[in-house]
Amino acid sequence: MSERKNEPPKNELYQWSVVSALVDGVASNGLPMSELLAHGDHGLGTFRGMQGELIVLDGTGFQMRHDGTTRPVDLSVQGDVTPFGMVTRFAPTTTTTAHISAKDGVDALLDSLAPEARNTHLAFRLDGAFRRITCRTAEGQCFEGEGLTAVVGRQASITLGPARGTVVGFRAPEFLQGVAVAGVHMHFIDDARCAGGHVLALETEGEVRVQVAEIWRSVIDLPRGDRQFNEAPMKLDAEGIRRAEG
Amino acid sequence: MSERKNEPPKNELYQWSVVSALVDGVASNGLPMSELLAHGDHGLGTFRGMQGELIVLDGTGFQMRHDGTTRPVDLSVQGDVTPFGMVTRFAPTTTTTAHISAKDGVDALLDSLAPEARNTHLAFRLDGAFRRITCRTAEGQCFEGEGLTAVVGRQASITLGPARGTVVGFRAPEFLQGVAVAGVHMHFIDDARCAGGHVLALETEGEVRVQVAEIWRSVIDLPRGDRQFNEAPMKLDAEGIRRAEG
Repeated sequence: MSERKNEPPKNELYQWSVVSALVDGVASNGLPMSELLAHGDHGLGTFRGMQGELIVLDGTGFQMRHDGTTRPVDLSVQGDVTPFGMVTRFAPTTTTTAHISAKDGVDALLDSLAPEARNTHLAFRLDGAFRRITCRTAEGQCFEGEGLTAVVGRQASITLGPARGTVVGFRAPEFLQGVAVAGVHMHFIDDARCAGGHVLALETEGEVRVQVAEIWRSVIDLPRGDRQFNEAPMKLDAEGIRRAEG
Repeated sequence: MSERKNEPPKNELYQWSVVSALVDGVASNGLPMSELLAHGDHGLGTFRGMQGELIVLDGTGFQMRHDGTTRPVDLSVQGDVTPFGMVTRFAPTTTTTAHISAKDGVDALLDSLAPEARNTHLAFRLDGAFRRITCRTAEGQCFEGEGLTAVVGRQASITLGPARGTVVGFRAPEFLQGVAVAGVHMHFIDDARCAGGHVLALETEGEVRVQVAEIWRSVIDLPRGDRQFNEAPMKLDAEGIRRAEG
């Protein structure tokens, strides 16, 4: 993690750990947020114990918690860690505006804006007014090692709207299911930085600004020296991930 | 590809494309071998049209062809390309000697030598005498887009031995099936650099030298601007990969 002293390259994905580890409940340790944020200014992930949702927006990270509160991440050495996070230094190559009537519309919109990037990562961002946007925030593990599917089974979801804010997202190709979340994966935070979470449904109010970047290089660091990670069975549970993160 | 002017970091995996692309027959284009070899000195992969097997040993690449011939890779701009390759700058952290009586023994040996790296990549190398070693060399695609399983269905396999030579291998965790080849994946070349291929079976003659390195960071580049890659369905075919590359 310490090799990259300089500004990270644009539109390269940096990822800490893999979604399959969360599925197996590997969430007791992680990368300090300061190290994650050194790799990018746009991203998402979770916290120790899967306590809430991480959004990284213009270089600032926020934790959106199950109790509805939101706070900036703690960048101190002893502060927040992420057991799973992905970030990029976002430099959009396509910018437009669009009305989006449902979550599925995001996938279709990305297909039309990046038709030559079907089988690679996309980073994207939506800014503007949302008529309704449904967000979940994970409560966190009830016990060490509790798996993602069980944790998300207790999720709180709220529907905001009308609300102004930003969606930060990635789309991963199907063959990366388990490494990342295949398909569209996005987190929202409102302009007041008070409310948001993992996006389950959305409809925009008129047109929002849409920015997209294609990502052709990924860097994945795995958690060295983490016994919980080392001992996890880590079999691919594609259907479990779709249910939990889709 | 052009960002890394300096020596690559030790024991970081650099990978071009993914095995799922070979499964879908994406093998008409690729990364020039000179660029692959800039990222590491130890590795394996294939060639345009899946014509034979690539082994990278001490920084030199060789193509082992279906007709039993072997040649150094062409590093010229117009030379060989790889549609799938993985390399590292190999700096072994464990060196020992061992007798290995069967291919399964390699996996067990790696478990014992790197017990804290069950869920990450290992790079390894075996040097010495082999009582018998069975290698296959892919003949290559009969038509553009022919998939890996069909190509490998026509493989030639030969059993060498007694033979002195080197096995270059990686072991990938199960959750990376489709990105890489899950489990042990190894290519062999004899000391004369005349014969070898993808290892299907082996038994050592007495003890061979065993070197292992743990790999905690992977860099994956996907083929930008490759229409064949972009249009491939790229669904995970775990069983097909196990049959073809296991």
